[in-house]
Amino acid sequence: MTNPTAAILIIGDEILTGRTREGNGYFLAGVLADAGIDLREIRVVGDDHATIVSAVRGLSAAHDHLFTSGGIGPTHDDITADAVADAFGAAIGVRDDARAILAAHYAACGMEFNAARLRMARIPEGARLIDNPVSAAPGFSLGNTHVMAGVPNIFQAMVASVLPLLTGGKPLVTASLRVMRPEASVAEAFGALAASMPEVAMGSYPFVQDGTYGTNLVVRGTDPQQVALGLSRLRALFPEGQ
Amino acid sequence: MTNPTAAILIIGDEILTGRTREGNGYFLAGVLADAGIDLREIRVVGDDHATIVSAVRGLSAAHDHLFTSGGIGPTHDDITADAVADAFGAAIGVRDDARAILAAHYAACGMEFNAARLRMARIPEGARLIDNPVSAAPGFSLGNTHVMAGVPNIFQAMVASVLPLLTGGKPLVTASLRVMRPEASVAEAFGALAASMPEVAMGSYPFVQDGTYGTNLVVRGTDPQQVALGLSRLRALFPEGQ
Repeated sequence: MTNPTAAILIIGDEILTGRTREGNGYFLAGVLADAGIDLREIRVVGDDHATIVSAVRGLSAAHDHLFTSGGIGPTHDDITADAVADAFGAAIGVRDDARAILAAHYAACGMEFNAARLRMARIPEGARLIDNPVSAAPGFSLGNTHVMAGVPNIFQAMVASVLPLLTGGKPLVTASLRVMRPEASVAEAFGALAASMPEVAMGSYPFVQDGTYGTNLVVRGTDPQQVALGLSRLRALFPEGQ
Repeated sequence: MTNPTAAILIIGDEILTGRTREGNGYFLAGVLADAGIDLREIRVVGDDHATIVSAVRGLSAAHDHLFTSGGIGPTHDDITADAVADAFGAAIGVRDDARAILAAHYAACGMEFNAARLRMARIPEGARLIDNPVSAAPGFSLGNTHVMAGVPNIFQAMVASVLPLLTGGKPLVTASLRVMRPEASVAEAFGALAASMPEVAMGSYPFVQDGTYGTNLVVRGTDPQQVALGLSRLRALFPEGQ
């Protein structure tokens, strides 16, 4: 059985204009690796309806899961829910279950349940709500697409809510060896080892430390025995590695 | 005249597996905003030939410029140059100009010019080299696609080499107002103002400070007078803002 695949779609002009350094993709990439879901693409697009619709259609069709981040708040530039509904041809409007969650939350906090906040109860027909323990306003899953907030602590809480509901695969196992040699001086032996072990993926990542070149050699795979074997062969090639 | 558009393609399994937090996209997004080049998409894909070819074809056709990051080093997992050549139907091999640059650099440093390093002189036919003042091995521009290294300081140096050769447009101008009110309580007035000023884009970004909700209201556009007008109208709406 092969692992399910996934893509992440990050939505927001603030990323593309250089205002905000995106971190939700990085967070979720690590979580998916542990869950045995193979992340194949991260895409960042702006707050444009047609672009979001097109990206949701393409990425949800190409992968087992699509996770989105951003654009489900109370303001006019929050257009993700409508775009996802359009992408799947689903109707969208204020849903009673979402409204009840928000009403209870604002009553408990003594906050006004105004028109802007009611906007966050707009959920596509047929979607399942994603619990938001931070600020109540829910995300939702429509088909294989999981729609979450962009604010990092809320995004992370929503990931924790939705991930246990998904069927994962074999966790990605990683091992690495750090050698104080430039990448080019390990390339030939490392490449030959990688070619001899197609069951795992091997990558090399150069760095400079105190003016000296070094390389991290990484072995990745879903079979822990193969990854351990790859690491032991790496150690044999580069006994000085750590 | 409208600004030219661009996309960024980040290539590397280390991003999709959660090993590395990507930062080149964030860096270049800011540079492009200042250069008057509208960034429309950032995409991250893994070290897979067919996926890179397809992404390069799609993104280079859809935008005035495509910038890529990663996969042009000396090891077996550096496959970007071949994939970009394939995407444009260009031949690729060791090129004399690139070999001469590398030979001079390694001679000056007393480093061996081995087979792995020679791999970095593989440049598609018809490409223009991008200067790499950090470690010599060049990037290249093929058509509208600018291929650069993933190591951040080398990526930044290559951006500095290639950007002055491109024709930009009007720089993106940004102004913002910080109000200590939750996003939902500014949404109605802010949305109405945004709708009345289609010449600029307006976005809102919530935050929490010492347990209190606040919102950054941002005005963006390429006409500085319109952005200033937007900011002054925002100040009139929210005189307590800073």
